[in-house]
Amino acid sequence: MNLDALYSKLLVKTGAKLVLLVLDGLGDLASNGANSCTPLEAAVTPNLDWLTQTSAQGRMVPVAPGITPGSGPGHLALFGYDPLEFEVGRGVIEALGLGLELKSGDVCARANFCTLDAQRRVSDRRAGRIATEVCEDLCAVLSKKLKAIGDTQVIIKPGKEHRFVVIFRGKGLEGPLTDSDPNREGLPVAAVKPTDPKSARQKKTAKLVEEFYAAALPLLAKKKPANGFLLRGIAHQPAIPTFEERYGMRAAAVAVYPMYKGLAQLVGMDKVEGPQTLAQQFERYLELYEEYDYFFIHYKYTDKAGEDGNFEAKRKAIEDFDAALPILLQKKPDVLAITGDHSTPVAIKGHSWHPQPVLLTSAYSGSDKLDRFTETGANMGSLGVFEAKYLIRLMQANARMFDKFGA
Amino acid sequence: MNLDALYSKLLVKTGAKLVLLVLDGLGDLASNGANSCTPLEAAVTPNLDWLTQTSAQGRMVPVAPGITPGSGPGHLALFGYDPLEFEVGRGVIEALGLGLELKSGDVCARANFCTLDAQRRVSDRRAGRIATEVCEDLCAVLSKKLKAIGDTQVIIKPGKEHRFVVIFRGKGLEGPLTDSDPNREGLPVAAVKPTDPKSARQKKTAKLVEEFYAAALPLLAKKKPANGFLLRGIAHQPAIPTFEERYGMRAAAVAVYPMYKGLAQLVGMDKVEGPQTLAQQFERYLELYEEYDYFFIHYKYTDKAGEDGNFEAKRKAIEDFDAALPILLQKKPDVLAITGDHSTPVAIKGHSWHPQPVLLTSAYSGSDKLDRFTETGANMGSLGVFEAKYLIRLMQANARMFDKFGA
Repeated sequence: MNLDALYSKLLVKTGAKLVLLVLDGLGDLASNGANSCTPLEAAVTPNLDWLTQTSAQGRMVPVAPGITPGSGPGHLALFGYDPLEFEVGRGVIEALGLGLELKSGDVCARANFCTLDAQRRVSDRRAGRIATEVCEDLCAVLSKKLKAIGDTQVIIKPGKEHRFVVIFRGKGLEGPLTDSDPNREGLPVAAVKPTDPKSARQKKTAKLVEEFYAAALPLLAKKKPANGFLLRGIAHQPAIPTFEERYGMRAAAVAVYPMYKGLAQLVGMDKVEGPQTLAQQFERYLELYEEYDYFFIHYKYTDKAGEDGNFEAKRKAIEDFDAALPILLQKKPDVLAITGDHSTPVAIKGHSWHPQPVLLTSAYSGSDKLDRFTETGANMGSLGVFEAKYLIRLMQANARMFDKFGA
Repeated sequence: MNLDALYSKLLVKTGAKLVLLVLDGLGDLASNGANSCTPLEAAVTPNLDWLTQTSAQGRMVPVAPGITPGSGPGHLALFGYDPLEFEVGRGVIEALGLGLELKSGDVCARANFCTLDAQRRVSDRRAGRIATEVCEDLCAVLSKKLKAIGDTQVIIKPGKEHRFVVIFRGKGLEGPLTDSDPNREGLPVAAVKPTDPKSARQKKTAKLVEEFYAAALPLLAKKKPANGFLLRGIAHQPAIPTFEERYGMRAAAVAVYPMYKGLAQLVGMDKVEGPQTLAQQFERYLELYEEYDYFFIHYKYTDKAGEDGNFEAKRKAIEDFDAALPILLQKKPDVLAITGDHSTPVAIKGHSWHPQPVLLTSAYSGSDKLDRFTETGANMGSLGVFEAKYLIRLMQANARMFDKFGA
């Protein structure tokens, strides 16, 4: 029997409350020899320490050994969707990051304005990094004239500097397509092609993009320096079984940044709008406690500090998180998991493949008798090292949401 | 290459003796914070402590993350059969529990006597929980008149109170079928149907069950209160490659309870009859040492105590086990593994999904330098956290039963 089918078969609803707290990029490395420590180890975390007394710990491989995930695959795995099975294109992630609400089948492309020379070759792939306001004006020009191509709706949304997003919403469309970005200057804009030459839907979509180019380029012809644009990561939003179908839980996403709300919405969670600080996010959780079974709460600043290579800022972000935790614990959920979507080590200044530590507490988690929640402590936990996509199944088990398998 | 095929290809016979000691439901939780402990941690176990000096430890996921196994899947995994691939129906497990010897293809059903009202609706699903002697008498009535239906042999065996088992032994039969139990009172007995509408064998089996009902109900018509019966978990014994085919070892099952003997017999182990105590089981092992390569020795009382939520009884059961261990160690096998088929935490009073601790000792196990065999110790062992179905492969490797893979 297929494992997902088994989970579905054994599922029972218990009314339990489950909370997933994601400190983005939480995991880190002790990089300076035997006496060094990680930001999580260096941080003063009395509330996490207290939780540790009644928690199991472990480490999670975000996708597969050695694979560094982007935010998309990292979060899909945390939501229990195998990122190798459910691929989300970059165009989709970019659109979600701009706060666009996508529908199943939407084809999205990351776009940026560029400069074309008299021979229509790309002379600057970023059009001199035009100001965001200029980008907004140009997008408005395109949006006004290009609301649709045939039956297909076109949605254009500006991002920062030269970046924008194009969404094609219609029937029978499919990605992924090749990029129109030639990837270096001096070459013409490339024709967009199906990645699967046998796919009639991809062919149709490639033709649509060609028509979009034909209609859009004349509108920019006299603009300087942004008289052209390049498309990358052209992909459709895949059909994904919803969180509620899959897990039997109504889920709320309490995130501040659009991308994380978008990723949660992709699997059918409700986006909770409003909160700007972690304290506000926890307060919204308290308010919504009765309305949902599962809460995904996302905290960005650990990742930001890791990306900046700023050890002190990451330590501080963890301490700020710990200080806010008592607000959430006013209504302690039946099952609480605290982890990252991946590691963002200070020494790497970016996402990495290192398994992120995870803490799981419930009436049935047992205690691993560790003093603190840290990377090295988690190495000794009863959860071992496991794939992130199973976290939600362990959370459900701790919520007693599975019947016994067999007699 | 398929992994099972690789194991088979590399297999060499060495004449080594392997012993699997199963303390049913061994794993547990430290449920009361940092200072609490598990029954295994609380128990005084000088013999296990001594073994630990030359052992590797780890923890085993019984089936998959978050899945709580019944005894069937739990033991199949220990015997190296993936429980998701080899599913054993509840009727089969029930029949094994009553000590029935099954043949491949036998269709088994859990049955219980019920009361039908004048409109032939189920008015009591358990016929007032009739005494076991009454059940035995009724089964004798049915058995006497219903030895076969057409070419198919019918075997009826009473259990406790209102429970019994029906086995259909013939050609071309197959389960699983739907239950005839309507699951609540006031409804008629349900017609039994194929779960796969395309299966001709299931159709044939469903028709057979219908004929069985037609022949059996008149025999009970005047009985009170048990004038009907319900069938559940109707499934056939799957064809399973035998233990000897798969591992190249003659295997003996030294268990006291029928279900565990039955599960071992299901994969082709020889049942050893006689022993009633663990000391007697170990003595039988000593006697049979030359006759078999692999011994499965099953100890029930750790699970019983866990099911009762009795910490002290579980601790005591572990100490009793430890006290008997020197009998087995009179002939120390080449490879000895000590573990559970799953955890049965006192706090849960039932089976659970928590990985059970495992100890493995051989001339090649190495020592993990742990003082004791416990859950928290096992978290730090060299075996890590792994799926239970691989234990037998590790045991075989420790018996030097695998050639090198590749050059």
